[in-house]
Amino acid sequence: MSLTPMISTQPGFTGGILDRADQVRSDPTLLAEAFADDRARRLLLDGLDPVADGDALATELLPRYAALDDYILLGIDDRGPLFVALDPDVPHGGTFSPAAWALADMLPPSEVALYGGARSLVDWHARHRFCAACGAPTAPEKGGWSRRCGRCRSEHFPRVDPVTIMLAELGDRVLVGRQPRYPAGRYSALAGFVEPGETVEEAVARELWEEAGIRVRNVRYVMSQPWPFPSSLMIACMAEAEDDVLTIDETELEHAMWVDAAGIRAAMAGAPDAPFTAPPPMAIAHHLFVHWLAERG
Amino acid sequence: MSLTPMISTQPGFTGGILDRADQVRSDPTLLAEAFADDRARRLLLDGLDPVADGDALATELLPRYAALDDYILLGIDDRGPLFVALDPDVPHGGTFSPAAWALADMLPPSEVALYGGARSLVDWHARHRFCAACGAPTAPEKGGWSRRCGRCRSEHFPRVDPVTIMLAELGDRVLVGRQPRYPAGRYSALAGFVEPGETVEEAVARELWEEAGIRVRNVRYVMSQPWPFPSSLMIACMAEAEDDVLTIDETELEHAMWVDAAGIRAAMAGAPDAPFTAPPPMAIAHHLFVHWLAERG
Repeated sequence: MSLTPMISTQPGFTGGILDRADQVRSDPTLLAEAFADDRARRLLLDGLDPVADGDALATELLPRYAALDDYILLGIDDRGPLFVALDPDVPHGGTFSPAAWALADMLPPSEVALYGGARSLVDWHARHRFCAACGAPTAPEKGGWSRRCGRCRSEHFPRVDPVTIMLAELGDRVLVGRQPRYPAGRYSALAGFVEPGETVEEAVARELWEEAGIRVRNVRYVMSQPWPFPSSLMIACMAEAEDDVLTIDETELEHAMWVDAAGIRAAMAGAPDAPFTAPPPMAIAHHLFVHWLAERG
Repeated sequence: MSLTPMISTQPGFTGGILDRADQVRSDPTLLAEAFADDRARRLLLDGLDPVADGDALATELLPRYAALDDYILLGIDDRGPLFVALDPDVPHGGTFSPAAWALADMLPPSEVALYGGARSLVDWHARHRFCAACGAPTAPEKGGWSRRCGRCRSEHFPRVDPVTIMLAELGDRVLVGRQPRYPAGRYSALAGFVEPGETVEEAVARELWEEAGIRVRNVRYVMSQPWPFPSSLMIACMAEAEDDVLTIDETELEHAMWVDAAGIRAAMAGAPDAPFTAPPPMAIAHHLFVHWLAERG
């Protein structure tokens, strides 16, 4: 195995190309045919971590003793149907694993995207084996794209949790913040979960008010990214701050500061005198900085 | 009670102005103080339906016998803290209720937004009384913004399910579709849930491929909307179709068709000879049509 880190021109986990074959999942006959296909393979995982085979994810033919109820149908490609095994014993996938990061940095974007989706699904099944409505055990259905309660018959679907991540700008400067868990010197864009009852734009404004005490207007969507720790949808935005006086919520942020374009350029270039260490290309925040610099010309 | 329908210039359930007081939820002392506040009120609901008082939602002072664990803190406004009662017996909130629609059409946007958020939260608690990880009962924490398992201590947060809703355009025409459950003559934008492992843009492209058999490029975000049936985040986009040949997935759509700008204008004006009946201003699809017509000048 000889791998070279790739230069990311897009956030990690984006760029999936697998046909998810939605029509197969919900048709028991088609699903059984896909599972019985001689070419049907399974994606290998090490717990929730990826396993590489050259510059691709490792797969193998489905074992003969396999049972459909133990597998998720990820999709169908030129080589046939692709599944991944359920694993009720995986560790909680909410924490970023260094092994996942390192290997994901070495694989083509479509492979990283495939891994991210599989990881989120395997984690979701492991963490959702019981019915939230009545407490009884649930079982997978629809090729692993839902679970059904054996008692109250409630159907449950995999979670995707929308998260806003944003740069507030004021003239020549943008706001960056630091969470206590970050590596030394690292700053990034501020972020927070979208709550029931609000738009993306309202969530951005609320997060900046709660965490940094600033009011913003003209929130603009930039791009999005699936983030499989365990299953977020990162929604990246820009916003215009009305003033630069910070009131930091210290339960969320260790520090926050305004940085000008020269400082952002230095951080992105990894300059020794940069005001902070930028997030890596895997993170959508990296691409928000790129976007902001490009918009300024 | 005398109410006049309001002209909506924004999608329903957007435009919330209540301070959600995030810092109070997670601080037991502040939360207890808010609950003990003489001015603390509760929002009244009829099951999951709204209750009006003039042109606002009905509220009343918290009853003396109230227990904090039975309430969600919605936020704090000039009149004091605002709560809503948990209700384990409400009907499932996944279906749009005509009463909610009718009344929501009469209230100012900020009141409709407040109702939407409260409805999603009350529904979520009623449907999530047990731990999905181990099956044991859970109890509310953080002013109703999470639930904690009494056995395995897992913490569970309210769901927000991102949904893409999109217009594919090709020259002078856009693609509209009809689900079997729609009122007679109604067509709207196509829509579908974002899945684990994909971006907003990838979800848009996948849905249009799955439901209508068309490939698209240049997916562009337009706006978003919380949709509390039970707790979606609608993410509205435009996309450019590569051709106009439709292959309709009849499990999802009853019919789909391309409509030119004159036809969309007629539908939005409610003209008797319009090719379809447009969705009402409450729906974000209505505003996607407005946006598309405005872009064309």
